Amino acid sequence: MNGADALIETLVANEVTACFANPGTSEMQFVSALDRQPAMRPVLCLFEGVATGAADGYGRMTDKPACTLLHLGPGYGNGLANLHNARRAFTPIINVIGDHATYHRQYDAPLNSDIPTIVGPNSIWVKSADTPDSVAAIAAEAVSASYGPPGGPVSLILPADSAWLPASTKPVVANVPVRAAPTGEAVDVVAKAIRAAAKPVLLLGSQATRAEALVQASRLAAAGFRVLTDTFIARQPRGAGVFQPGRMQYFGEAALADLQGVDLMVYVGTVTPVAFFAYPDRPSVLVPEGCETLTLSTRQEDSVAGLAALADALGAPASGPVQPLKVADASPTGPLTPQAAGVSIARYLPEGAIICDDSVTSGGGVAVPCATAKPHDVLALTGGAIGIGGPLAIGAAVAKPDSKVVSLNGDGSAMYTVQSLWTMAREKLDVTVVVFANHSYRILNIEMGRTGSGNPGPSASKLLDLGDPKIDWVSVAKGLGLPAVRCETAEEFDVAFARAMAEPGPKFIEAAI
Amino acid sequence: MNGADALIETLVANEVTACFANPGTSEMQFVSALDRQPAMRPVLCLFEGVATGAADGYGRMTDKPACTLLHLGPGYGNGLANLHNARRAFTPIINVIGDHATYHRQYDAPLNSDIPTIVGPNSIWVKSADTPDSVAAIAAEAVSASYGPPGGPVSLILPADSAWLPASTKPVVANVPVRAAPTGEAVDVVAKAIRAAAKPVLLLGSQATRAEALVQASRLAAAGFRVLTDTFIARQPRGAGVFQPGRMQYFGEAALADLQGVDLMVYVGTVTPVAFFAYPDRPSVLVPEGCETLTLSTRQEDSVAGLAALADALGAPASGPVQPLKVADASPTGPLTPQAAGVSIARYLPEGAIICDDSVTSGGGVAVPCATAKPHDVLALTGGAIGIGGPLAIGAAVAKPDSKVVSLNGDGSAMYTVQSLWTMAREKLDVTVVVFANHSYRILNIEMGRTGSGNPGPSASKLLDLGDPKIDWVSVAKGLGLPAVRCETAEEFDVAFARAMAEPGPKFIEAAI
Repeated sequence: MNGADALIETLVANEVTACFANPGTSEMQFVSALDRQPAMRPVLCLFEGVATGAADGYGRMTDKPACTLLHLGPGYGNGLANLHNARRAFTPIINVIGDHATYHRQYDAPLNSDIPTIVGPNSIWVKSADTPDSVAAIAAEAVSASYGPPGGPVSLILPADSAWLPASTKPVVANVPVRAAPTGEAVDVVAKAIRAAAKPVLLLGSQATRAEALVQASRLAAAGFRVLTDTFIARQPRGAGVFQPGRMQYFGEAALADLQGVDLMVYVGTVTPVAFFAYPDRPSVLVPEGCETLTLSTRQEDSVAGLAALADALGAPASGPVQPLKVADASPTGPLTPQAAGVSIARYLPEGAIICDDSVTSGGGVAVPCATAKPHDVLALTGGAIGIGGPLAIGAAVAKPDSKVVSLNGDGSAMYTVQSLWTMAREKLDVTVVVFANHSYRILNIEMGRTGSGNPGPSASKLLDLGDPKIDWVSVAKGLGLPAVRCETAEEFDVAFARAMAEPGPKFIEAAI
Repeated sequence: MNGADALIETLVANEVTACFANPGTSEMQFVSALDRQPAMRPVLCLFEGVATGAADGYGRMTDKPACTLLHLGPGYGNGLANLHNARRAFTPIINVIGDHATYHRQYDAPLNSDIPTIVGPNSIWVKSADTPDSVAAIAAEAVSASYGPPGGPVSLILPADSAWLPASTKPVVANVPVRAAPTGEAVDVVAKAIRAAAKPVLLLGSQATRAEALVQASRLAAAGFRVLTDTFIARQPRGAGVFQPGRMQYFGEAALADLQGVDLMVYVGTVTPVAFFAYPDRPSVLVPEGCETLTLSTRQEDSVAGLAALADALGAPASGPVQPLKVADASPTGPLTPQAAGVSIARYLPEGAIICDDSVTSGGGVAVPCATAKPHDVLALTGGAIGIGGPLAIGAAVAKPDSKVVSLNGDGSAMYTVQSLWTMAREKLDVTVVVFANHSYRILNIEMGRTGSGNPGPSASKLLDLGDPKIDWVSVAKGLGLPAVRCETAEEFDVAFARAMAEPGPKFIEAAI
């Protein structure tokens, strides 16, 4: 057993059994050790941003970390943006970052860089295993740290010699931390304030948007209290039989208009809502003036217990409102729009499906009809770094091989991590990728006006438009190994999406909107 | 004039006139200001790694910085790997990184992260322009810092409010630092040591591999001294009429075998050579035991002056050996190999062409015949982070619109920044992209054995092989807007490459090797 074996054995002993990888020379011992432990599933990604986003999708769907295998500082750098998103989703991930042998670092070879500094801002824990005998214990510590609460990406740096030298240690079992429930006193303070408030609102985030929490939140809705969620949610069930809270609006002024008159905001697994971006003369903090704020449960605490206790304290009914099942009987007709695509998606989405949403301006049109589709999960873009729709879907499909996964993407977003299509083909994942091709960074056309920058002229237009040349998405997807079709009408999309849901395996649909 | 105008005006006043960009909301003021200053050419890249690699290619060919426009920490992260390469190439680059408005940072909005920390390891200078009136002076400082010497990427963080608020300052002219020549004393010490040595070697890197330096180095070769370069070079002329030094071998044991008996190594614009990676029981430092080492000129100093002074001190002739012009008369025949492709490339490469080389295991086959082709420049992968062949070519083509640019790539490398093909199509750049498709991370199959990891089993093979499914590169390239052809024989490649050199505009060739 060498250090690489010690690492993999400890990871497997702690139920870390998926490895999204793009290795290089410094990771060859880890790669070789995979042959000796078949419980760890290696998934090759042709770009590290695919690997890290896949680990995020896997973690969101299993509540267990996957590991990534990354090649020194630049390999981590390629995966950084989706780890930023994962940090904002509080997803446990074990990044294994290969490094030069400990004695080789001092020579500043071409691939050398300051890995601890680069990984710091998007890691909730960082350690380098600088001797082979330290690897198992540090790996267990990494697993434990990744769970938080509230969880997040950790970075375990593995020097090449720690991997190749003999290691005598046995696998170490990690301590998995448990969330503490909020105190009875904290619940009482909130209950009292809610009773006293004229217009209270509960705002749910992180763990408080999961199924068990929504059951409790629905009781509070039944008792007459308004419940909202953060704008972008790591994972939330949706559809028939599920309680659907409202959602904080994306644009700050719309959010504040929606909250007009609210005199108490109660945070459940979240913090003060703020605008996604600042704009001249618009608010940053999305809490009405004079509104009191209280925290029922922090992101570290158990929001399910907190919501249940609060519902009990307020004498809420044992259950609350849930969504009905209601989908269109017939195919939508006419030009293909995100709204029309959404109607078809809602018609055919099977129970237990997983939607990975990186569709930016097209997403709203899909959300509305899917609110009454068969029950499914939605994974959204939590950190604003586009290019996660394909990677998340890979991870979700590896985590839940019996579920249909639907990846919704803007064309600008999809191009960021277009390499993900190949991994879907290689692993024969049951993912249907939809790219809404408007050949534009449409959101930026909207944002340009909002930032007071005026209308785009010739130079600005060159940076917002994707239409010259138009990407032939079907050609790209086929080239990367996926069956692919372009839909230009609502009817065509309805047929294509129905077929994708009826057949197993990866599919690609270009939605020409 | 607002802060964004102040930035662009100062950049243009200092001859920074190309902007490789992928903007977001926080950069909309910069985008809008581009409309008011047409001297700055905006080039949209669909992924930030394309933008940073393009800025590297531009900087290598002009010795002036381009700027990038990146969207907060994640946007920079996407460009990090190619900035790692640029740092190792000592290329001046001005990264303009948009950030939240200064007053909005405290709220930790979803796209917030610790930008100064993330950018630190790959920046030779970092500053945030936190008021609009500071922008022009800080921009001039950034330009100055990017020149070094020896130059490198700098990071200018531009908060959204510094961009949108009025700025009263005029453009500021940057001080461009000049390299100091090594002292006469330093030259004398080296000259004396060389005369005394039995088997001296000069090792050239950074500025010492450029055309003017090679003219002086050839004089030393003519005087009987062996001249080598670093293994990976930012920019080096090659071909007929050019002095071609030897090259440090990639594998450490081969390098040391090549240097056997050498008793003096003289560094010219470089430092102690080290192995690219460490391996069990193999050397890290590639200097023979007991060999003396001296520095003629550091990377900060003027190596051209140093080499000229040394050649004078040693009484070297006024000129030295250069390569003859010698290319194959006829097309190679039979199966397509990198060697056969190299013969064809050498046959048709026009004078003044620029080869951007990210072809890993296929590169050696091309280098040999091109050593006697018409004179051209070669830009290599300096930092080991693959995925730079396409981006470098974009930058080189923008920098030198009258030159043919040839981008040579492994298939694993090309997939990293495949988005670069679209920018070539949009900008109608005169780039011919060759992808050597062996459907494997071939180098890792070699490295696996060298690291003592044994032969790949089923899991390891899954991480080294790209052949299931085989990427249809022609389909991918056509989908991204390039005319594309697949060549399976040497004859087919010869015809395709001849045509690509005869016609202007972007072309794609899949070399099925």
